[in-house]
Amino acid sequence: MQAAVLGEPGTLAVTTLPVPQVGPEDVLVQVRRASLCGTDLKIRSRHFFKDGGPTAGEFVPGHEYAGVVAAVGGAVTELRVGDRVVTEAHRGCMRCANCLAGAYTDCLNYGLRHTGHRVQGMTVNGGFAEYALNHVATLHRLPDTVDFDAAVVLSTVGTVMHAFDVLDTLLVGSTVAVLGPGPIGLLATQVARELGARTVALTGTRETRLAVGKSFGADLVVNSREEDAVAAIREATDGVGADVILECSGAPNAVDDALRMAKRSGKVVLVGFFEQPVRADLNHAVMNGISIQTVRGEGAGSLARAVSLAARGRLRTAELVTHHFALSDVSEAFDTYAERRGNAIKVMLDISEDPEPTRAR
Amino acid sequence: MQAAVLGEPGTLAVTTLPVPQVGPEDVLVQVRRASLCGTDLKIRSRHFFKDGGPTAGEFVPGHEYAGVVAAVGGAVTELRVGDRVVTEAHRGCMRCANCLAGAYTDCLNYGLRHTGHRVQGMTVNGGFAEYALNHVATLHRLPDTVDFDAAVVLSTVGTVMHAFDVLDTLLVGSTVAVLGPGPIGLLATQVARELGARTVALTGTRETRLAVGKSFGADLVVNSREEDAVAAIREATDGVGADVILECSGAPNAVDDALRMAKRSGKVVLVGFFEQPVRADLNHAVMNGISIQTVRGEGAGSLARAVSLAARGRLRTAELVTHHFALSDVSEAFDTYAERRGNAIKVMLDISEDPEPTRAR
Amino acid sequence: MQAAVLGEPGTLAVTTLPVPQVGPEDVLVQVRRASLCGTDLKIRSRHFFKDGGPTAGEFVPGHEYAGVVAAVGGAVTELRVGDRVVTEAHRGCMRCANCLAGAYTDCLNYGLRHTGHRVQGMTVNGGFAEYALNHVATLHRLPDTVDFDAAVVLSTVGTVMHAFDVLDTLLVGSTVAVLGPGPIGLLATQVARELGARTVALTGTRETRLAVGKSFGADLVVNSREEDAVAAIREATDGVGADVILECSGAPNAVDDALRMAKRSGKVVLVGFFEQPVRADLNHAVMNGISIQTVRGEGAGSLARAVSLAARGRLRTAELVTHHFALSDVSEAFDTYAERRGNAIKVMLDISEDPEPTRAR
Amino acid sequence: MQAAVLGEPGTLAVTTLPVPQVGPEDVLVQVRRASLCGTDLKIRSRHFFKDGGPTAGEFVPGHEYAGVVAAVGGAVTELRVGDRVVTEAHRGCMRCANCLAGAYTDCLNYGLRHTGHRVQGMTVNGGFAEYALNHVATLHRLPDTVDFDAAVVLSTVGTVMHAFDVLDTLLVGSTVAVLGPGPIGLLATQVARELGARTVALTGTRETRLAVGKSFGADLVVNSREEDAVAAIREATDGVGADVILECSGAPNAVDDALRMAKRSGKVVLVGFFEQPVRADLNHAVMNGISIQTVRGEGAGSLARAVSLAARGRLRTAELVTHHFALSDVSEAFDTYAERRGNAIKVMLDISEDPEPTRAR
Repeated sequence: MQAAVLGEPGTLAVTTLPVPQVGPEDVLVQVRRASLCGTDLKIRSRHFFKDGGPTAGEFVPGHEYAGVVAAVGGAVTELRVGDRVVTEAHRGCMRCANCLAGAYTDCLNYGLRHTGHRVQGMTVNGGFAEYALNHVATLHRLPDTVDFDAAVVLSTVGTVMHAFDVLDTLLVGSTVAVLGPGPIGLLATQVARELGARTVALTGTRETRLAVGKSFGADLVVNSREEDAVAAIREATDGVGADVILECSGAPNAVDDALRMAKRSGKVVLVGFFEQPVRADLNHAVMNGISIQTVRGEGAGSLARAVSLAARGRLRTAELVTHHFALSDVSEAFDTYAERRGNAIKVMLDISEDPEPTRAR
Repeated sequence: MQAAVLGEPGTLAVTTLPVPQVGPEDVLVQVRRASLCGTDLKIRSRHFFKDGGPTAGEFVPGHEYAGVVAAVGGAVTELRVGDRVVTEAHRGCMRCANCLAGAYTDCLNYGLRHTGHRVQGMTVNGGFAEYALNHVATLHRLPDTVDFDAAVVLSTVGTVMHAFDVLDTLLVGSTVAVLGPGPIGLLATQVARELGARTVALTGTRETRLAVGKSFGADLVVNSREEDAVAAIREATDGVGADVILECSGAPNAVDDALRMAKRSGKVVLVGFFEQPVRADLNHAVMNGISIQTVRGEGAGSLARAVSLAARGRLRTAELVTHHFALSDVSEAFDTYAERRGNAIKVMLDISEDPEPTRAR
Repeated sequence: MQAAVLGEPGTLAVTTLPVPQVGPEDVLVQVRRASLCGTDLKIRSRHFFKDGGPTAGEFVPGHEYAGVVAAVGGAVTELRVGDRVVTEAHRGCMRCANCLAGAYTDCLNYGLRHTGHRVQGMTVNGGFAEYALNHVATLHRLPDTVDFDAAVVLSTVGTVMHAFDVLDTLLVGSTVAVLGPGPIGLLATQVARELGARTVALTGTRETRLAVGKSFGADLVVNSREEDAVAAIREATDGVGADVILECSGAPNAVDDALRMAKRSGKVVLVGFFEQPVRADLNHAVMNGISIQTVRGEGAGSLARAVSLAARGRLRTAELVTHHFALSDVSEAFDTYAERRGNAIKVMLDISEDPEPTRAR
Repeated sequence: MQAAVLGEPGTLAVTTLPVPQVGPEDVLVQVRRASLCGTDLKIRSRHFFKDGGPTAGEFVPGHEYAGVVAAVGGAVTELRVGDRVVTEAHRGCMRCANCLAGAYTDCLNYGLRHTGHRVQGMTVNGGFAEYALNHVATLHRLPDTVDFDAAVVLSTVGTVMHAFDVLDTLLVGSTVAVLGPGPIGLLATQVARELGARTVALTGTRETRLAVGKSFGADLVVNSREEDAVAAIREATDGVGADVILECSGAPNAVDDALRMAKRSGKVVLVGFFEQPVRADLNHAVMNGISIQTVRGEGAGSLARAVSLAARGRLRTAELVTHHFALSDVSEAFDTYAERRGNAIKVMLDISEDPEPTRAR
């Protein structure tokens, strides 16, 4: 099969690899569409790996993808050949204390393949190839009404769902502030609105992105280069502060801002990755009973939630899909995404043949 | 002021009472609209009261109402005269262990007025009068876009929100079964759909009510006189059973049915009142990890959630409002509701002058 | 190996079976001690099985046992040959929605061996044999200070821990009522006291059992044949009712009693199995915000909690161990337990050689 | 009455003030014993107040105290004159969204006396006086077996209970690391051990304090001046990291250390106050699903939990009480505490006559 693989640090190559063999609980996915995520850039540069990462020419990245079931292992009853599916990234070892408690994205055997743990495109081969091998539990059947472009974006919606899910509450009636209008932040804006948030505010620095946020239902967008985002959020919440703040920017001052946007006993969820240690007035958190939760990826049934909302036709994702490339152009796709050429938001790889007539480019 | 009061058991009278005096944390509400609830029938018959209830001629029932602020106590800063408001029923003592923990609808000083506890229209005078006296914490400001008919129904939506809130989860992606197409069940159907439930099924025996449920977004309605409701729910959930079951019927077999509709580790919430002890296969619950939670009324910030959803224009309530009566016709209103004359669902009392031009009858 | 197997319905036989082969994630346990539980009686009578159960001569019951690791599968790194271990019963499929969410005792693939689901001694062979095959995740290493008699009882303590764990709260400061002085109820009494309950009350009908409860730390024991248990609990809680009620009796009126013992917003946990549908005043639950949760077995890390408490020397179990039998006398052991001969509480099978010098009979 | 009041910034004076008048829900406490807390030092220096604080000569600090009920308001039924009581600091307005939800220590009307909010010794007069005025909900009746020295320390135990309570879990079986051997950290060590923690580790820099921690049940104490505390905790948890980390030190690097001590999906609770913004590798938290919760004071029924544990004789506090002073020597008491003269831990003020014969100095 054709596959994009990591080459020398900072490079990718397209090569031919054998199609993976399915184990008893595995599903072979003919990949139709895949998308790039910030983590993929760190994988290409190999900053993602503590030990330098895998040998050049062997490793297939890609953890956001959708396709069609091509083969199933002997113990698989949930899916059949021909089913259209979307993937989540994490499969836990399912035997450590965290996995047994339902926190499989925090598996204590992270990276230890022999325990059963695997993360698509990070610790095992992923979806930037004609075929990908998934544990059955990582795949979700797609409704017919959701095309592959939309399906791929559901991986990101899953992360948003996970971020809201850890709050252990209905979201309806809450005031929500979202920091950072990247794909996660924009989808968080939309999902918060759909789930009944009282007020949804989005902050960022790029007007084009903020405009998408507005069209996705933000009641308020704040360009933090032009106005004081903390003050704007507090004003929009009658001085009380927001119930829920989703940090999706990774900006150095974002945690400090998020804490100051929160009402007493407010909840901050960190979704973005930070490049550097963060400086924040945690005493303000202590004095005001503000908690900080974190999520990594789309665990805890959250991709199923995303699929459910999509099946109702209640998610708009087309605005986020700005570019398509063939697998053979994977390097250009990465560069386009990394440099945000043409205001790139989600950059797609078209991989196997795709007969869907309705897909818009 | 004019007020409907309890007369001899089973009767109501309209009389003149002094307008209540506001205490420091009180708000005087000029009542514009009020609606009848099943509990009001038990109050009229006095079955609600363990000790026979209040002396004839003194007590004003009514716990679902909306109106305009006419006066505020000296410590009230949240509301101003002229504000349009809707009420919740319960004010806890706010000093017992339950109130301190946020469970004020389960106040341990229930009925002890000197502790601060009061329930509008149940333990203190309610809203079937030109003026009602509320603690400020029981009132929620209405958006301009929500008329008084819709506002009154929000009290019931609050109960629905409370029922979903105790699940400590986002509802999105869940399969939900609702038993009983009364006002609570119908609104639960609608709210579940709005909050992103994957499947919403409604069971009942009255076709007209089930048709309203269908129009409110039920994916499946089951007339349990004609088919096996448990089997229908299990089939609609691929044999797994529903994640969440809301019992809103009070029917004798409803709990047993609800348990059998639940998936392993499913959650049943009891909202309806039962006339008699209930017989149910609780061993099935034990063997399958099914929990049974209960809610009484609209605590825990749930009315604010309802108002929020209404403010977004995402609640349809007009279909539920079938009748209007003047306060002077309160007895006929009760009879209409009790006997479900004209397929009565929500029966309204028009109380003070109502200048709203848009209200449809 | 020697093994007790189900014979014709109602009978057991001791036979020779091959020692099981370990799969990659399996551990072979040389069983040293096993104990009988009420479920084992239903397995012997075959009432446990909906379809009549397994062919005579093949199936090994036993889900409470401890022993020494004799062999490990290739993927097992957690345990080594020679480790002393205790088992929990349930291993989920770890791919259904419930297992992924941490609720593996409520696995949606219950009984479907090919999915990975197995329950020792119920759906796969258990511990009434010289060797048992366990998934590694079901085994917990024993501290040296915990002998095998005590270890076997930890399976039951695990169930108690699970029952308290579902409350999502610290137990310290709570008033606790326990119904039923069987092994679970007696251990619940002790654990509640250890975890800091403010008041622990135990109700039952057998004076000898209640006396054990008293020695295990019950502040109050109530013989419900002699006094009104509900009234006694309410009086012991200053009329408020108990915060937490553990139903461990399976008695027909137990749920109704438990509800009446509960304070407003109190929590009832059902642990006992009921032979028949239960009649209870669930309207009382609705009116008072009382919830009913259930647990089946020792999921959610609860056996690890039990081991931890035992390691501190804070569990007394010797009083519960009333009888020991050789594996060859398994039928007599069952009869002794079933008929409560000699006030039997926990009846043990001594299986493989046990060099422990300190074990008291 | 005699009372210590704030004088010019940095000073205290003893003066005569009128005995407070009780309102309907108030209780007048004859203060017997009070203790100093770090916050009292900030109150004396007036750094606690954003606006400079109250006029000299008027304000009585003190939020940790115990005494005897001297008078009760007309609506008080919970307590009677002569009852021995201990106080918690916070009384919420009980009408804002946070108070209604049970989060009264995070009252949205903080400091607004007319709403009902009050914090003893911070926003209203406290306990460094012969009499203090409390809302009835802030007082807890003391068991006879708990003397006033021990009672005063219960306020601090309440904070510890609150810190564990926000985890929404039983603590038994968890590995716990405590940073900072001040009174809160030392009591947290003891409480964690009592509630069944599997391992309790305490880190700090003062050997005398660590020795108290050892005597309070720490399995491991780490002098972070001498060894790498993070490495020590990870080693003590088999490389996995701790389930729960309580930050009680307020040290600049403490949050970063706490995060690195945590296992994947571990929970950090911040209890200490920080003087400065904190720098921490929050990306490590995101990558590992680590949450950070905060508590301020002893809300959520936590003082009742502390009293309950003390009533069982399961709290040791005498080791913490290092000094006693008369009210007239309040300035010396503050200096002793501030400068840790004589290894001061808890410094007590003996206020009204104290007939207890058993109190040891």
